[in-house]
Amino acid sequence: MANTEPATVTNKQIIFSGYVSGFPKESDLKVTTTTIDLRIPERSTSVLVKNLYLSCDPYMRISMGKPEPLSSSLVPPFNTGEPIIGLGVSKVIDSGHPDYKKGDLLWGVVGWEEYSVITLFPYSHFKIHHTDVPLSYYTGLLGMPGMTAYAGFYEICSPKRGETVFVSAASGAVGQLVGQFAKLVGCYVVGSAGSQEKVDLLKTKFGFDDAFNYKEENDLNIALKRYFPEGIDIYFENVGGKMLDAVLINMKLNGRIAVCGMISQYNLVDPEGVHNLTTILYKRIKVQGFAVSDFYDKYSKFLDFVLPYIRQGKITYVEDITEGLESGPSALLGIFHGKNVGKQLFVVARE
Amino acid sequence: MANTEPATVTNKQIIFSGYVSGFPKESDLKVTTTTIDLRIPERSTSVLVKNLYLSCDPYMRISMGKPEPLSSSLVPPFNTGEPIIGLGVSKVIDSGHPDYKKGDLLWGVVGWEEYSVITLFPYSHFKIHHTDVPLSYYTGLLGMPGMTAYAGFYEICSPKRGETVFVSAASGAVGQLVGQFAKLVGCYVVGSAGSQEKVDLLKTKFGFDDAFNYKEENDLNIALKRYFPEGIDIYFENVGGKMLDAVLINMKLNGRIAVCGMISQYNLVDPEGVHNLTTILYKRIKVQGFAVSDFYDKYSKFLDFVLPYIRQGKITYVEDITEGLESGPSALLGIFHGKNVGKQLFVVARE
Repeated sequence: MANTEPATVTNKQIIFSGYVSGFPKESDLKVTTTTIDLRIPERSTSVLVKNLYLSCDPYMRISMGKPEPLSSSLVPPFNTGEPIIGLGVSKVIDSGHPDYKKGDLLWGVVGWEEYSVITLFPYSHFKIHHTDVPLSYYTGLLGMPGMTAYAGFYEICSPKRGETVFVSAASGAVGQLVGQFAKLVGCYVVGSAGSQEKVDLLKTKFGFDDAFNYKEENDLNIALKRYFPEGIDIYFENVGGKMLDAVLINMKLNGRIAVCGMISQYNLVDPEGVHNLTTILYKRIKVQGFAVSDFYDKYSKFLDFVLPYIRQGKITYVEDITEGLESGPSALLGIFHGKNVGKQLFVVARE
Repeated sequence: MANTEPATVTNKQIIFSGYVSGFPKESDLKVTTTTIDLRIPERSTSVLVKNLYLSCDPYMRISMGKPEPLSSSLVPPFNTGEPIIGLGVSKVIDSGHPDYKKGDLLWGVVGWEEYSVITLFPYSHFKIHHTDVPLSYYTGLLGMPGMTAYAGFYEICSPKRGETVFVSAASGAVGQLVGQFAKLVGCYVVGSAGSQEKVDLLKTKFGFDDAFNYKEENDLNIALKRYFPEGIDIYFENVGGKMLDAVLINMKLNGRIAVCGMISQYNLVDPEGVHNLTTILYKRIKVQGFAVSDFYDKYSKFLDFVLPYIRQGKITYVEDITEGLESGPSALLGIFHGKNVGKQLFVVARE
């Protein structure tokens, strides 16, 4: 089939400068321009895509750290001098793979660049079939963060009607959905976030029963006792550190903690100590780390579950979108300082 | 039925002096003598027992602490001025309960005293039917610690042939059994203990593949890497603190940690900080606290499982037995300093 695009175009990329210790800086991610041939070579099974929306996710800080077996078991490290790798929504330009043809939309693993050549492996990419919802949702609500909220809450936490649920980083890409899922089950749900604007969002937009700004609490233990006088059945953990310590002593008997992320720890050279672990014993608590990739076989089941709620307006989603590939580095760095309000992503191209 | 015992006898007791902070001292537990009527009043459903063997268990330190909702959810606090409460093997002297008659043997919750009046509630006491094994085993291998090892290892850890297992406090009442169960499943199992004598026991008596003295290791992380170069699938947690921290960074993907106890923390005013909790996320680890009382419905299944192994000599058990009720306080205090070799108990009477 004749390809009508020009054979070679420029390809802007965000290049990884090298391993980061502490908070990442803009200089750790540099914009460069190269060129790319827009045709897949004969007999290759790769797919060439144009990236439309790219996703900024907390786990990416782990990929910026010095490669070590421990963290690499969750996410592979970035390669110095190469484009950083993330998740995005893309359009197929040329394909050597039988499952994809020109014009198809997909979401999955791509480079931070205008065009990427991708190699398919199981669950690396998902074809987008439903476009009556915002395409950008496939970086969030309908993508990895949505699947994370779904798997972590329903599969790991086994929620029951009437249980009490606490979500940290609750207005983030995953947290805002966990809160809404908790309400669908009939739970009482409280979220924490780092600004009054986010707290308001939780209560007015996402239907949390209550919410608080953790930065304005002198004692997180006292704050949690205020919202959970009878204790917490389920904690959806996104932050770690001091918050986890305070949550532990407020857990109820047979409580469950789904460990989705620990963003407060990623930028620390020495992780904080958590002191209240005997509670795991006293309260017979289950603390379970999980990776969304172990649940991608349930992705179509998830779509069947969540799409009707979106169409009926019963599940909503807030995104924080910046414009242009060049805006990516500061957008990504911002999430480690809580600058984003909702799911952070940026637009590379609209079509 | 006429009771031929004298109506009233002296009853030596170990009285709790009051709440303990830090390591308990002998003065926290005082011997006193009172009297007791050896007949159960008409229409009472209580049972009067003569205590034969009394058990010293690490969890009892929790009952010595200031009563608070957190720890009380696992074990009730001791009452000041009353005999401390523990587990023991006893013989029925008089009974107002239809399930028990004079001469029956049972194990369960009794006071630290020569005679106890007990009130039965579900799973508080178990009748002893098998006496071809040492009666003292019902404080250990065939009692609460045995059931703890069985439930914690098989139910919480879901072990598979070929997996690697680490057990701390491995020569203790529970640990020595976990190691033997692990070998029955076909696991590779290493234990830690606090003396060369205990390390030798683990290797020669209980069949652990290897063992080490944690007190002689400068760096527990390095020690664990020596025994588990490929990492740990299952950790049976008895100690908490620094050991847990070192174990966390040596866990394998999808590892399981059964939290049975955290003896290193019970005597601390401020619990130690554990720093490597991001591993729970990176390695998708399950950390599960449990209480043996949630598994007592499986007690007869446990006996059916374990008794044949004992009779065939395939499971062995080491006890540390002192003589006389008066020896109880120092025996109990000794376990918090690792003085016991094997399951600590004491004899009150032999029949």
